[in-house]
Amino acid sequence: MTLTSADPVTDGPGAVALLDRTRTAVDPQIRSTVETLPGSIRRVAMYHFGWEDADGTPATGPAGKAIRPALVLAAARALGAAEAQAVKAAAAVELAHNFTLLHDDIVDQDPTRRHRPTAWTVFGIPDALMAGDAMNALALRVLAEDPHPASAAATARLAACVIELCAGQQADCAFETRGPREVSLDECVAMAIGKTGALLGCSCALGALYAGAGEEEVAALDSFGREAGLAFQLIDDLIGIWGDPEHTGKPAGADLVARKKSLPVVAALASGTAAGEELAELYSRPVLDERGVRAAADAVERAGGRDWAQVQAADRMGRAVEHLARAVPDLSAAGDLLALAEFVTRRTR
Amino acid sequence: MTLTSADPVTDGPGAVALLDRTRTAVDPQIRSTVETLPGSIRRVAMYHFGWEDADGTPATGPAGKAIRPALVLAAARALGAAEAQAVKAAAAVELAHNFTLLHDDIVDQDPTRRHRPTAWTVFGIPDALMAGDAMNALALRVLAEDPHPASAAATARLAACVIELCAGQQADCAFETRGPREVSLDECVAMAIGKTGALLGCSCALGALYAGAGEEEVAALDSFGREAGLAFQLIDDLIGIWGDPEHTGKPAGADLVARKKSLPVVAALASGTAAGEELAELYSRPVLDERGVRAAADAVERAGGRDWAQVQAADRMGRAVEHLARAVPDLSAAGDLLALAEFVTRRTR
Repeated sequence: MTLTSADPVTDGPGAVALLDRTRTAVDPQIRSTVETLPGSIRRVAMYHFGWEDADGTPATGPAGKAIRPALVLAAARALGAAEAQAVKAAAAVELAHNFTLLHDDIVDQDPTRRHRPTAWTVFGIPDALMAGDAMNALALRVLAEDPHPASAAATARLAACVIELCAGQQADCAFETRGPREVSLDECVAMAIGKTGALLGCSCALGALYAGAGEEEVAALDSFGREAGLAFQLIDDLIGIWGDPEHTGKPAGADLVARKKSLPVVAALASGTAAGEELAELYSRPVLDERGVRAAADAVERAGGRDWAQVQAADRMGRAVEHLARAVPDLSAAGDLLALAEFVTRRTR
Repeated sequence: MTLTSADPVTDGPGAVALLDRTRTAVDPQIRSTVETLPGSIRRVAMYHFGWEDADGTPATGPAGKAIRPALVLAAARALGAAEAQAVKAAAAVELAHNFTLLHDDIVDQDPTRRHRPTAWTVFGIPDALMAGDAMNALALRVLAEDPHPASAAATARLAACVIELCAGQQADCAFETRGPREVSLDECVAMAIGKTGALLGCSCALGALYAGAGEEEVAALDSFGREAGLAFQLIDDLIGIWGDPEHTGKPAGADLVARKKSLPVVAALASGTAAGEELAELYSRPVLDERGVRAAADAVERAGGRDWAQVQAADRMGRAVEHLARAVPDLSAAGDLLALAEFVTRRTR
C-alpha cells in the first residue's frame, strides 16, 4: 500500500492547504514535462496522471496527494530558499514516484489506482511498462537539465534513491512467496525503508540541496524523511489490519486476507510467543475466512505486533524530529515539514 | 531484433579488435558499477551480464558485443580525447542498453538471450522488471556522479535518448497488433530510428561531449550514429528474411514466420503493387507454412522491398559518413568510427 492509495483526507487542515498549494505550484511543471514525451508514451502518462481519459479526452481524474513535492518545497523553504527555485526538483520526485506506481501496478496486477482502471489494464502491459521506463528517465532528465547549481548532485541522489526503491519493491514482492517464518523483522524494516522511506527522504534532501545546504543538513533532512516514511508505513500497516472498512474502502483486515507480511505481522511472527505461532499457522492456510481474519488480527495483537508497531511509529517520528532539529535548529522554520510528517502518520482510517 | 542478438562475428578484424579492446577497458567499470546495486537486484544484473549463474556461482557467459561503448570511446578519440576519460560514459550506454534488453525480453516473452535463459525466466517477471528499472537509474547515476565537466550534459542527453528508445520499443510492440496495411513506411522508419538509431547516436554524441566538442560536432556525431544504426536495422531486417539459417541460427524467413512488420516488409506492403497486395493477404492468414513463407519472401522481393532496403542501407551509410565528415574533417582520425559502422552494417548472415 502506498501513500497515494489512501482516500481523500479530512484531518490536518494545515497540511491539506500545503498540499493544495503544492499542486498549484508544481502541477504545471509536471504537466509541461510530461507533454515533452513522444505521443504514444505521453498518452499513457497523461491518463495515469488523470489529465486524460483513455481515448485522449481531457479529464480531471483525482491526482495523487503530492506529499513528495510538498516535502521538497517545504524543505527548501525551511532552509531559506524561495520555493520557486525548487519546482523542478519537486516535479522530478513526483515523476519518479509515478514511474514506480506504473510498474508496481503491473507487478501487483492491481486493477485500480486513484479510483480509475490502472494504466496497464487500459493500454496493456508493454505500453504501461515502457511509459514507466520513460518516466523514470524523465524524472532524472528534468533534474539534469535544470540550470540550478544543485542539479548534478540532485540527479545523482534521485538516481540512487530510485535504485533503493526498486530493491525495496523487489523485497516486498519476494516476501510474498516466502513462508510466514522466513521473513525477519530486520528485513521487513529494511524493505519498508526502501519502499517508502527512501523517496520521502530523498524529497527532503533535494529541497535542502536546492537551498544550497551543506552535506550534513542534506543528510539530516534525508533521515527526517526516511524516519517519517517508516512511521507512515507502520501506521499504514496498522490500518491494513484494524482500519475501519467504512473509511478505508477495503474489507476488514484486508492485509491479512492478502496474507501480507506487513510490519506488525512480521513483528508478531518473530515474537517467539504462542500467539505468534498461531498466526504462523493461520498464515499457512490456503484461505482465511472472516473468522480466520479475526483470529489472525487477534493473534497479531496478543503477540505484541500491534503495540510494537504503535511504539515504533511514535519512536520513528521522534527520531525524525531529532534529525530535523539538527538541520533546522529553529523548528518554527520547519513547521510545514512537521505538518506534512504528522499528516502522513496521523491518519487513523 | 537487436544488435546483440546476432551471432559472434568473423568479418571486420579491425572492428573485432576494437570491440575486444573496449571490453577490456570498459567491463571493469560496468562491473564495479553493477556491484554497487543492492543484493537482490545485483543478483539479477550479474546473471544478465553473464558474470554469475542463477545461483550466484561466478560464470563467464557470453557478453554483448560492446558496440555502444566502443562508439563512445572511438568518438572521444576521433575528437582528440584520451579514451580513459570517457570510460564512465561508455559504461553508462552499455548499462542503458542492457536495461532495455531486460525489459524487452519480458515484453517479447523471449526465452533466451546470448544463448542463456533470459533473466525473467530465471528470476521471475517482478525481479527482472525491478532490476531493469534499477539499471536504468544506474546508467544515469554513473554519468551524473562522474566529475567530468560533460557529466550534466551527458546525463540529460542519455535520459532523453532512453525516452526515445522506449517510444521506439513501444511502437515496435504496437505494430504487431496492427493489420498489414495499417503501418506506414514513415512510421516504421521512425520506430527503427528510435529503437536502434537513438542509442547508437547518443553513444557517439557522449564520446564527443566527453572530448569537449561543441554543439555542432556533438549533433553531427549523433546523426552519424543514428544513420549508421538505421543502416544496421535495414540489413538486420534483410537477414531476418533472407539470412542463411546455418548462419543466423534461426529458421529461414524467421521474421516472416513471426509476421514482423520489418522495414522491407512495410516497404513492400506500402508499394501499391500487386505483389504488395499478395503479401498483405499472406500476412492476414492465421498461420504461414513453409510454402507461405517462401511466397511472402518472394512477394517482398517483387514488390521492391528488398531493393528498397538495400538502397536505403547504402544511402543511410552515405549520410552517416557525411555527418561524420562535418565533425571530423580529417577522416583518417575517424577510422575506428567508420570501422565500427561498417562492422554493424556489413554482416551478410
